[in-house]
Amino acid sequence: MAKTLDELLTVTAPVDLPSYDSRATTGFDGKKADAEKQLTQLGEELSNLQEKLFAGGRSGASPTRVLVVLQGMDTSGKGGIIRHVAGLVDPQGLAITSFKKPTPEELEHDFLWRVESRLPQPGEIGVFDRSHYEDVLIGRVRQLATPAEIERRYGAINDFEKAFTDSGGILVKCFLHITKDDQKERLAARLDDPTKHWKFNPGDLDERMLWDDYQRAYALALERCSTDHAPWHLVPSGRKWYRNWAVATLLLEQLRALDLSWPQADYDVEAEKTRLAGM
Amino acid sequence: MAKTLDELLTVTAPVDLPSYDSRATTGFDGKKADAEKQLTQLGEELSNLQEKLFAGGRSGASPTRVLVVLQGMDTSGKGGIIRHVAGLVDPQGLAITSFKKPTPEELEHDFLWRVESRLPQPGEIGVFDRSHYEDVLIGRVRQLATPAEIERRYGAINDFEKAFTDSGGILVKCFLHITKDDQKERLAARLDDPTKHWKFNPGDLDERMLWDDYQRAYALALERCSTDHAPWHLVPSGRKWYRNWAVATLLLEQLRALDLSWPQADYDVEAEKTRLAGM
Repeated sequence: MAKTLDELLTVTAPVDLPSYDSRATTGFDGKKADAEKQLTQLGEELSNLQEKLFAGGRSGASPTRVLVVLQGMDTSGKGGIIRHVAGLVDPQGLAITSFKKPTPEELEHDFLWRVESRLPQPGEIGVFDRSHYEDVLIGRVRQLATPAEIERRYGAINDFEKAFTDSGGILVKCFLHITKDDQKERLAARLDDPTKHWKFNPGDLDERMLWDDYQRAYALALERCSTDHAPWHLVPSGRKWYRNWAVATLLLEQLRALDLSWPQADYDVEAEKTRLAGM
Repeated sequence: MAKTLDELLTVTAPVDLPSYDSRATTGFDGKKADAEKQLTQLGEELSNLQEKLFAGGRSGASPTRVLVVLQGMDTSGKGGIIRHVAGLVDPQGLAITSFKKPTPEELEHDFLWRVESRLPQPGEIGVFDRSHYEDVLIGRVRQLATPAEIERRYGAINDFEKAFTDSGGILVKCFLHITKDDQKERLAARLDDPTKHWKFNPGDLDERMLWDDYQRAYALALERCSTDHAPWHLVPSGRKWYRNWAVATLLLEQLRALDLSWPQADYDVEAEKTRLAGM
């Protein structure tokens, strides 16, 4: 039996990032134009399943909710996934959070506090553009916490994610993998195009100088936090069309597996028909 | 010169709702299939302008933000607008709020408190599915506040909306107009289709019994709160395709009028190119 994309892209330890080809098209048989056509079809199925998911949550029939976690270096395409994949479904059922540098209030709490309040509600598809993983990525690279605290966080993340999946949550964790050369090309494209200058920040180059440190921090996070209940997927993201197709497919596989059904009426349908007929 | 849809649909006092045809296609020359084709084209332009709007807000260059307020009786299509119109743009730049019955905490504050916290940020397009207008609609019909308080609220709303538009906000207020017969047909369709049972609530019929009271409350709200800075539009919503086309067009007219431009870089582009080349 053919493997699911979930199986094909799930990370297993030890993680050696340089050994992964960022331009791979794992699990996809075809060219760019085929992927774009398929994405439209996937979009229709996603949209239909999302409506059922939303119906279940809205009616109180089901606690199921989905959270897509997007992590990756600058220019890896977190924003592109939101636009091209999350954009395929009814925005009413989406809960998108873009995590920035923590505020002073957020810093007063445990690192998971700000994440907890942004988890999707039943029926929703949440998308995290960056996430609690920043606290073991930039946290490690920039030494924003002690080594012991960073070490504690891997376990805390696993417990937190377990509690989420135990209570009806589905996690789709995607690491958007690009190479240092891919990033150079994309940053250069931003600097060359005045309509993209707003996407660039000189701080991006300061982070780029720490590329190798970030790769090590990512490898560690993927190793320590790819669990049975919440596996990490390494999504080759050197080709944008494959990246979009892959994340849409990972999400779709999860929604299909839920075997969603329309919620039953919790009122007497015939009685309501009669009432309506008379008014 | 041809009138804009904004001009064609703006409400003027006195408002006599029964005199409006819910199946009118004001300002549109064509049939259903034409409108659906046009909507796809409008969607591309909307999506491009929304990206510029978002860029301006994200970069701190502009305080401009847009708020679409959707009001209308049950089944008038507030959810449909979110799916088919808001769904045309990047969800990253959307801030959708669906206002329900106020919580005890919300009731302890002035009625505008909960709305204030959900206003769109610079660069965002906010969508209110129901809004502060509920407090002069169900508020009036169900006598949830004293007549003097309801009376005060019209002025409070106008002041609130003026402060919003004075600080870079654009308001697109849409009343989705359907007739009592339109609603009967749509509620019956929900009861007849098990995949739509979750959208129906027996309380919808209790509200329907007060149809005439709601129509009076709407007429008053439209009269009292259609201002130069924040006009009310009456969108004939008996035909879903026209309703979607009309709201997309009203939003697009506002975005076009902003004459948006890409934000300038606030860093030295050439210096950054040199830095990047060396790393």
